[in-house]
Amino acid sequence: MDFLKDYTGKINKELEAIDLPNGPSNLYDPLRYFFKLGGKRIRPILTLLAAERFDKNAVNDSINAALAIEIFHNFSLVHDDIMDEAPVRRGQQTVHKKWNQSIAILSGDVMLVKAYEYLNSYSPEIAKQLIKIFSKTAVEVCEGQQMDMDFEKISKVTQEDYLKMITLKTSVLLGCALQMGAIVGGGDVQGQTDLYAYGLNMGIAFQIQDDLLDLYGDPKLVGKQVGGDVIANKNTLLMVIAKESANENQLKKLEKLSTETNIDRKIKGIIALFKTLKVQEKCQELMGDFYNKAEYYLNKIDVNDSESGLWLLTKQLQKRSY
Amino acid sequence: MDFLKDYTGKINKELEAIDLPNGPSNLYDPLRYFFKLGGKRIRPILTLLAAERFDKNAVNDSINAALAIEIFHNFSLVHDDIMDEAPVRRGQQTVHKKWNQSIAILSGDVMLVKAYEYLNSYSPEIAKQLIKIFSKTAVEVCEGQQMDMDFEKISKVTQEDYLKMITLKTSVLLGCALQMGAIVGGGDVQGQTDLYAYGLNMGIAFQIQDDLLDLYGDPKLVGKQVGGDVIANKNTLLMVIAKESANENQLKKLEKLSTETNIDRKIKGIIALFKTLKVQEKCQELMGDFYNKAEYYLNKIDVNDSESGLWLLTKQLQKRSY
Repeated sequence: MDFLKDYTGKINKELEAIDLPNGPSNLYDPLRYFFKLGGKRIRPILTLLAAERFDKNAVNDSINAALAIEIFHNFSLVHDDIMDEAPVRRGQQTVHKKWNQSIAILSGDVMLVKAYEYLNSYSPEIAKQLIKIFSKTAVEVCEGQQMDMDFEKISKVTQEDYLKMITLKTSVLLGCALQMGAIVGGGDVQGQTDLYAYGLNMGIAFQIQDDLLDLYGDPKLVGKQVGGDVIANKNTLLMVIAKESANENQLKKLEKLSTETNIDRKIKGIIALFKTLKVQEKCQELMGDFYNKAEYYLNKIDVNDSESGLWLLTKQLQKRSY
Repeated sequence: MDFLKDYTGKINKELEAIDLPNGPSNLYDPLRYFFKLGGKRIRPILTLLAAERFDKNAVNDSINAALAIEIFHNFSLVHDDIMDEAPVRRGQQTVHKKWNQSIAILSGDVMLVKAYEYLNSYSPEIAKQLIKIFSKTAVEVCEGQQMDMDFEKISKVTQEDYLKMITLKTSVLLGCALQMGAIVGGGDVQGQTDLYAYGLNMGIAFQIQDDLLDLYGDPKLVGKQVGGDVIANKNTLLMVIAKESANENQLKKLEKLSTETNIDRKIKGIIALFKTLKVQEKCQELMGDFYNKAEYYLNKIDVNDSESGLWLLTKQLQKRSY
């Protein structure tokens, strides 16, 4: 995503330039560490692009809103990593592994407060609007994370519940990032709503693509073991659809494969069963629906032209292979 | 503190009336549970009293700011209880014990966001002022908690560092509660600053009193085992002062007592040593200094009259025995 490099670079530069106190170092070092871990920075870039859509000169004005979104995203990663007991994030140790769990909880908490400080840096009217949509979204992200954890203890999750979970856990934040950019850029309410809807649908499609890439992506490009979700018996959309489509025998087979300890045999078995059940096609179709909806809303506010950052980003994300 | 009963009742009623979504129940049940655990509700009461000081009719207007402060306080308790591995809070199971740690992290996070939602319910100008002082304070509370955790690994903490830690961990929140009330009540900047300074000094005195009561309080009134801090080898102000006053022999004795497994012998030994070192008197003197400073600032904005809620509260807190 070459055209985004400038934006990513801008976000990275701003994140690293954040003036944090030296002490207590056990509180602030994790922030400095995490802000340097990198990442696609898609959320803050959406904020910048949305602001630019309404006001060519609003990119700099929207930086603080973009930082708030990215810092919030980092907060949720630090806390989620504790809950998931994840040892590695972006190729580096997670905060609770590198320091300890208490420090990870507390430095995450500080990140959340810092996000609000960036939003509160705007004029009172703008700040109030930003904080309203941001808080609503933050609550939803927590709800999504809780649903995700609850799903680990449920063997059969419905497609509807799964889509609701990823909407809350992932997509609303993309919608929020865009709406906040629109607010700072001076967009009208209709424009804000359309951009939010665009982000929401993009986010769902993006998450479905993640599920697909985990099993069908090129391991060299994806950068992690193919089938990680399958190995961990995660309820991804693939698995949800498989279970909904399977007959009794196929369900038994799935059940048996979930306890298969030979990883190679497990993944091959699952892929074969998914093929019979046309799981990949069904997922791709669903993903296509959400990308179409996203494009519908984007078209409403931004006619498809090759100069539009939001369109370029949409096209790039659709054909991404990692 | 009889005269406060009306205020406490009001806060409890408002907390229990908060309209939380039903699901995910694992996210919201802990909030409902924790809001009902009770407590002195001193922080939100300070907000109400401060608002009333500037505008007799502002008590109802200040409820949302008071709720924000109390919900923030609850957030910090839920997360601190995880860090401290505390099984019991106000005689009931802590959230991470009753549910699990992930749920405690996440429901704490939601509380923090909810606190901001209450602050953002005010007019843009007021909301921006409230969120500014609140965010600054929230960051400081995290810093104080981190310092407290860091102190567990340091054998000798200076009095200055200890006072800084309790200022950040406890006192700034009292100052913030008062300043927010003053803002909502329409107090001028000088009034806000004086009330903040009053709260800060009250908070430090209050915390020193906590340390004193832990060892010298009446176990029936304090409601927990006397000497809990001593048993856990906590760096309280008593211990900090003892170590600063002790000669080499006395330090060795303290060191030896810290590993004493007979609790009765340990507490008696510490009390005897503290007596020689005049630790209790020194602590009381310091506490008196902070109470005096608090009264100085309160006098600046509120002449000592028997009708003043803030004065009544101050007097009550000074003579509290639990």
